[in-house]
Amino acid sequence: MPTSFGSRLQKGFEKYGQLCVGIDPHASLLAEWALDDSVEGLRSFAFTVLDAAVGRVAVIKPQVSFFERHGSKGFEVLEQLAQRAAESDIQVIMDAKRGDIGSTMDGYFDAWLGKTAPFLCDALTLSPYLGFDSLQTVMSESLERGKGLFVLAATSNPEGKQIQRARSGENTVAAQIYSSLEAANKISADAHATVGSFGAVVGATLNLSAFGLGSIQSDTNQLTAILAPGFGAQGAELSDVADLFGASSNRVLASVSRSVLAGGSGQLAAAIDSAKAELAAGLKHD
Amino acid sequence: MPTSFGSRLQKGFEKYGQLCVGIDPHASLLAEWALDDSVEGLRSFAFTVLDAAVGRVAVIKPQVSFFERHGSKGFEVLEQLAQRAAESDIQVIMDAKRGDIGSTMDGYFDAWLGKTAPFLCDALTLSPYLGFDSLQTVMSESLERGKGLFVLAATSNPEGKQIQRARSGENTVAAQIYSSLEAANKISADAHATVGSFGAVVGATLNLSAFGLGSIQSDTNQLTAILAPGFGAQGAELSDVADLFGASSNRVLASVSRSVLAGGSGQLAAAIDSAKAELAAGLKHD
Repeated sequence: MPTSFGSRLQKGFEKYGQLCVGIDPHASLLAEWALDDSVEGLRSFAFTVLDAAVGRVAVIKPQVSFFERHGSKGFEVLEQLAQRAAESDIQVIMDAKRGDIGSTMDGYFDAWLGKTAPFLCDALTLSPYLGFDSLQTVMSESLERGKGLFVLAATSNPEGKQIQRARSGENTVAAQIYSSLEAANKISADAHATVGSFGAVVGATLNLSAFGLGSIQSDTNQLTAILAPGFGAQGAELSDVADLFGASSNRVLASVSRSVLAGGSGQLAAAIDSAKAELAAGLKHD
Repeated sequence: MPTSFGSRLQKGFEKYGQLCVGIDPHASLLAEWALDDSVEGLRSFAFTVLDAAVGRVAVIKPQVSFFERHGSKGFEVLEQLAQRAAESDIQVIMDAKRGDIGSTMDGYFDAWLGKTAPFLCDALTLSPYLGFDSLQTVMSESLERGKGLFVLAATSNPEGKQIQRARSGENTVAAQIYSSLEAANKISADAHATVGSFGAVVGATLNLSAFGLGSIQSDTNQLTAILAPGFGAQGAELSDVADLFGASSNRVLASVSRSVLAGGSGQLAAAIDSAKAELAAGLKHD
């Protein structure tokens, strides 16, 4: 049995803090970096961000759509990036938001998390529109391989509430996803671990109570890692992390991309260090 | 302005009927076809299905996960398949169930529907967990390019109801998605068209009323194409299509894969013809 993703993440938090650097090679960012909107530009951008992140943060999060738009050659760069990251002391969460049923979902597992996965990573983001229970086979297979999953619960964009705050009985959809993850972590997390292998995506821009997620702030006994987008351009402040997530702050993986990437490659290391310091100060609030 | 996807689909229905052949190169199907679970096996399978489908049906639907599991080389086969299909009189719906926000969603648009999209297709399936309104930019851009979208509404698997039947006010999530698509089609469909460019994925295995989708069966005035999985192995019968979808039967794109693919390449053409005949008979019911 390999080390669980949750335990690796917990160790990464202790060693490097809780910042996650997104690798978002958007066409406009490539232009800001004076790179061509080409496979070569993509590779240069992605490798530069990885190299700056190694030794500074525990986790990088490549945004798959920006590789996918370059076609099979873009996916080849993603394979190379994954291989390079695997040789470093850094974990990779692939932000692909995949989700399907049965054997189709198995195909995604093979691609990202399986034994011979071409897109090697530690964890994958999933979209649960086909029902949380449709993810259960992949959850148990991921656990066996020491892999993690981050399932969308409450996203940082304003349109997300249309579905995520809909109710099934007493619960919102977001709360149903979150509590299912928490239940899975209670059963499967390593003894004495404070972080399980099944994370939730919860935007830092949200009123958590309105999504039925108030327990995140108040319950001191949870295990679900929280991948939190929404810092920076979308409006949340890293220094507010303890106010935003309360009792769960120590399990928040605060994701930044545009805000550290926009300054160009020359300022990247300093921007990461600065975001890291702001987050660390925010975590010491209480 | 190019011909709209909805009008192309309508013409395809008139010429070839309403069957959609799924291209699902699952590892177990490759084995049944005596092909290696390799990029070469994948290419041979995909091209064989395409060639058998051309001239028989209006639409093929490659299941992207089964290409993705072969990595960048698998995506290269998908590019080649798309190119080969574009040279034939057949339309391609890529079943990728992508979904994200803002510039990330733009990346997916570039990959599948944009001007230089490497994965050339006529339409793409989308997952709406981040909110229907998060898809609106891609909807208007798709319309401009004569492309279509199929958004998950009510899926054929039993776990889907956890989210899709949750309620937001009076409406289920599935009904909210479906009525938003119908509203977009009412505004954007070509004059005198009976099919719009924005479709819904609605499983053939479902009790539509329980999902708040009873209007599909009763309303004779709708425009939303219905991509319907669930025929064959999942239990629905092509001969029952008129009973299942009532007033909307003429907009149903009935998707089959395992049931026509499982017999091997030698029986493929006959299996497609047989499914096509069964569906056509089912549509003449009333």
